[in-house]
Amino acid sequence: MKVAILGGDGFCGWPASLYLSDQGHDVVIVDNLSRRAIDEELGAESLTPIASIDDRLAAWEEVSGKKIGFANIDVAEEYDALLDFLNTQRPDAVVHFAEQRAAPYSMKNARNKRYTVDNNVRATHNLLAAIVETQQDIHVVHLGTMGVYGYGTAGMKIPEGYLEVQVTTDEDENGQPAEERTITQEILYPSNPGSVYHMTKVLDQHLFAYYAKNDELRITDLHQGIIWGTTTEQTARDERLINRFDYDGDYGTVLNRFLMQSAVGYPLTVHGTGGQTRAFIHIRDMVRCIEIALNNPPARGQKVKIFNQMTETHRVRDLAELIGKVSGAEVALVPNPRKESAENELHVVNETFLDLGLNPTTLAEGLLHEVEEVAKKYADRADLDKIPARSLWTQNQQAGDPRAAEK
Amino acid sequence: MKVAILGGDGFCGWPASLYLSDQGHDVVIVDNLSRRAIDEELGAESLTPIASIDDRLAAWEEVSGKKIGFANIDVAEEYDALLDFLNTQRPDAVVHFAEQRAAPYSMKNARNKRYTVDNNVRATHNLLAAIVETQQDIHVVHLGTMGVYGYGTAGMKIPEGYLEVQVTTDEDENGQPAEERTITQEILYPSNPGSVYHMTKVLDQHLFAYYAKNDELRITDLHQGIIWGTTTEQTARDERLINRFDYDGDYGTVLNRFLMQSAVGYPLTVHGTGGQTRAFIHIRDMVRCIEIALNNPPARGQKVKIFNQMTETHRVRDLAELIGKVSGAEVALVPNPRKESAENELHVVNETFLDLGLNPTTLAEGLLHEVEEVAKKYADRADLDKIPARSLWTQNQQAGDPRAAEK
Ligand SMILES: NC(=O)c1ccc[n+]([C@@H]2O[C@H](COP(=O)([O-])OP(=O)(O)OC[C@H]3O[C@@H](n4cnc5c(N)ncnc54)[C@H](O)[C@@H]3O)[C@@H](O)[C@H]2O)c1
Ligand SMILES: NC(=O)c1ccc[n+]([C@@H]2O[C@H](COP(=O)([O-])OP(=O)(O)OC[C@H]3O[C@@H](n4cnc5c(N)ncnc54)[C@H](O)[C@@H]3O)[C@@H](O)[C@H]2O)c1
Repeated sequence: MKVAILGGDGFCGWPASLYLSDQGHDVVIVDNLSRRAIDEELGAESLTPIASIDDRLAAWEEVSGKKIGFANIDVAEEYDALLDFLNTQRPDAVVHFAEQRAAPYSMKNARNKRYTVDNNVRATHNLLAAIVETQQDIHVVHLGTMGVYGYGTAGMKIPEGYLEVQVTTDEDENGQPAEERTITQEILYPSNPGSVYHMTKVLDQHLFAYYAKNDELRITDLHQGIIWGTTTEQTARDERLINRFDYDGDYGTVLNRFLMQSAVGYPLTVHGTGGQTRAFIHIRDMVRCIEIALNNPPARGQKVKIFNQMTETHRVRDLAELIGKVSGAEVALVPNPRKESAENELHVVNETFLDLGLNPTTLAEGLLHEVEEVAKKYADRADLDKIPARSLWTQNQQAGDPRAAEK
Repeated sequence: MKVAILGGDGFCGWPASLYLSDQGHDVVIVDNLSRRAIDEELGAESLTPIASIDDRLAAWEEVSGKKIGFANIDVAEEYDALLDFLNTQRPDAVVHFAEQRAAPYSMKNARNKRYTVDNNVRATHNLLAAIVETQQDIHVVHLGTMGVYGYGTAGMKIPEGYLEVQVTTDEDENGQPAEERTITQEILYPSNPGSVYHMTKVLDQHLFAYYAKNDELRITDLHQGIIWGTTTEQTARDERLINRFDYDGDYGTVLNRFLMQSAVGYPLTVHGTGGQTRAFIHIRDMVRCIEIALNNPPARGQKVKIFNQMTETHRVRDLAELIGKVSGAEVALVPNPRKESAENELHVVNETFLDLGLNPTTLAEGLLHEVEEVAKKYADRADLDKIPARSLWTQNQQAGDPRAAEK
C-alpha cells in the first residue's frame, strides 16, 4: 500500500512511518518541521538526541534497505503544493498526524490559540478539499484524541464515537407528515473539550462527518489516548532513528514526564489531587493500530469510522505511585493549571482494535524498560527548568487564582 | 449601549446598524467590504443600487442626525487591528455578522470551500480570542443558521439549541465510583449541515461552547431562518440608505429570488420537488430580534444562549405557488443542485423571541409590498443570466449526474 504520512517527523508519525515501511508499505512523509521550530521557540529539546530528517531517512535506508520519501510541505498553508503532492504520489491512504498537539501550548496566549486553531483546522480541511479536488479515492486515517469526549464525562461508558439517542418525529421516511413516533438516531458523541487544542479535534470531527456525507470520502478517526513509551522495534535499530521524547511542561505527556522526573530524581508532580482518569496506549501498540486501521477502511458512502485507540485507563495519582514504586521517586501534589474536574471516572469501549487482533503492551510490562533505556540513559540532557507546566487555562488564574501558583 | 457591528455593511448588518442607531445605541461598523468584492468577482450586482459605505454613513447622519462609526478591518486576517479596535472602542456588545454566508458560493470549488472555512472560523475565533485578551466583558451576539440542525431533521421538533439525552453513569457528583444510575444531560443539538457554509456555523457553535465554558464569555447564538424582504423603516428614509437585494444563483435566498423572478416575468425556479421545508423571518423582525438579544445577554459563566430566530416555516413549492398567485408568475421545477432530502418537515421552537415581545411580520402581509416596491421598481437592473444556481454539491454531479443539468 502506498501511504503518505502527514506529520511523519513527529513523535507518533516517525515510528509509524518506520513501522509501515518495515511492513513493506511504500511510505512517503510530509512534514513542515514545525515541531522542531517550536522546540527552538520554547528552548526545550527532546530528551533523546533526534537526528535531522535527512539523517533519519538515510539511516533507515542503510539499516533496512528501504526508502522513505519526504516532502517539506506546510499542509495548512501550502494548498497547491499539497494538491500537487497528491496528484503525483497518488497514495492509497493518508495518515494525518500534522497538527499542533500540546494542550498547554495551545493555552499560553492568543497567538498560540490562534496558531493551533488555524494550523489544525486548515491542515485538516485542506487535506479533505484536496482529496475531493483530485477525485482520488484516498482513505484518510486521522489521529484524534480521547479528549474530545471531555475528561469529565460523568462516568458514562464511552462508545466508539457515536451515541444512540431517542427522538420523536412526525415525519415518515419520505419527509411527509405522519403519526408521531419515537425513532433512534445515531449522533456524534457529544463533545466537551478541555483546551483549545482538544477543541480543534472536535472541529476536525465535524469536518470529517461533513466530507464523509457530502463527498463520500473514506475516513477513519482514531480517538487516541495518551501515548507512553518512546522506542519501537524499528527506532531501536540505530541511534540515528531514535524517536523524540518530550518532557517539558508543554509537550511532555503525563506518563513520559513522570518517567523522566523519576530518572533525574525530580519529584513526580501531580496536578491537583491527581484524581483525573486518563486513557493510555503504548507507542508500539499505536503503530500497530495505524496499520490495522489502514487495513480496515470504511466503505465509500459509509459514515466516519471512529475507533478508540487506547488500552488502559488510570488515575494520574495511581500512575505516579506506580512509577514511584518502580523507581523510588517521590510524589508531589501541585496546583492544577487546567480548568477541569478534580476527579473523574473513565470507561472506554475499545473493542474494535482488540477484535482486529491488537495485543496490548501493558504498563506493568513496559515501564521499567522505559525508565532504564530512555529516561536514565539520556538524563544528563535534561533541563530541569523546563519540566513545570507554565500555561494557565483562564484569565482568572492569571489574575491571582491560587491555581496560578504552580511554577 | 455601545455596539460594534461586524459585517455591518452587509444585507443583515446594514439595516441592523441603522435600527440600533435609530434606537439610540452608539453604533460602530467593522467590515472589510469583502461582500462587495465578491459582487465584482461574480459579476453580479445587488438588484437595488447600494451606495458606498461612506455615502451610506453620510446619508444616515444627514437624515437622522446620528453618527455611525466605521473601521475597515478584516476580522479573519487582521487580529491586531481587531484587538486594537476593541481596546479603543470598548463596546458593550459585538454583533457578529462577518462571515461568508452563501451555501452555493461555498460549494463552487476548493478555493471557495477553503475561503469559507478560513474566513468564518478565523473571524469567529479571532473575535473570541481577542475578547479574552482585552479582559473586557463584551457580550457577543452571533448570527448562526437554522441550517446547522440540517434540513432533513426527520420531523423532530427542533428546540432552541440544546437536546436532553439520557445516559447511564457509575460516577457520583465528585467523580468517584458509585452505583450505576441514569442522568439527564443537555447537549448541543446534533448538527447535520448541508453545505460547507452551514458546516462553518457548526464549527462556530463549538468555538462558542468552548469559550463560554473556559473563559466565561457571554455569548448569544441566533439560529436564524432565511431572511426575506429588503427594506426596513430606516433604510427606506433615503435612497442612499437602500439595502442590498441579492438575486443571483449564489447569494439570492429563495424567497427574494422568487420575488425578483416574478417581477421580471421569469418562471419561479423550484429545485427538485420543492418539498424542502425552510424557516423564514422578515428583515424587520430580524433587526428587532438583534436588539432583543442585546437586551437579554446570558450571565457570565452561563452556557451559550441559543435562540431560534425565525417566525414561519414553508415548503418551497408552497411559497412559489403563493408568490405565483400574488404576481401571476409561473412555477418551473428544475433539478436540485444540492445533496439533500427531497421532502422534509420542519418544526421549530421559537418561543424565546415571542416571549420577549417579538410581533412577527407575516409573509401574507409583507409579500406584495416587496414585489411592488423593490423587485418591480429595480427590475430593469436585473441580469437574468445570473439567476440560475450553477454550483454543484458533489463531484458525482460534475461527472454527469442528471442533477447537473440545471443551467
Ligand atoms: N502524543 C500523544 O500522546 C497523542 C495523544 C493523542 C493524540 N495525538 C495526536 O497524534 C498526532 C501526532 O502527535 P505527536 O505526538 O506525534 O505530535 P508531534 O508534534 O510530535 O508531531 C506532529 C508533526 O506534525 C508536523 N506538523 C504540524 N503542523 C504541520 C503542518 N501544518 N504541515 C506539515 N506538518 C505539520 C510537525 O512538524 C510534527 O512533526 C497529533 O494530531 C496529536 O493530536 C497524540
Ligand atoms: N441572509 C440570510 O438569509 C441569513 C440567514 C441566516 C443567517 N445569516 C447570517 O447572517 C450573517 C449576515 O448575513 P448577510 O446576509 O448579511 O451576509 P452579507 O454577505 O450580505 O454580509 C456579511 C458582511 O460581512 C462582511 N465580512 C465578511 N467577512 C468579513 C471579514 N473577514 N472581516 C470583516 N467583514 C467581513 C462582508 O463584507 C459583508 O458586508 C451571516 O453570518 C449569515 O450567515 C443570514
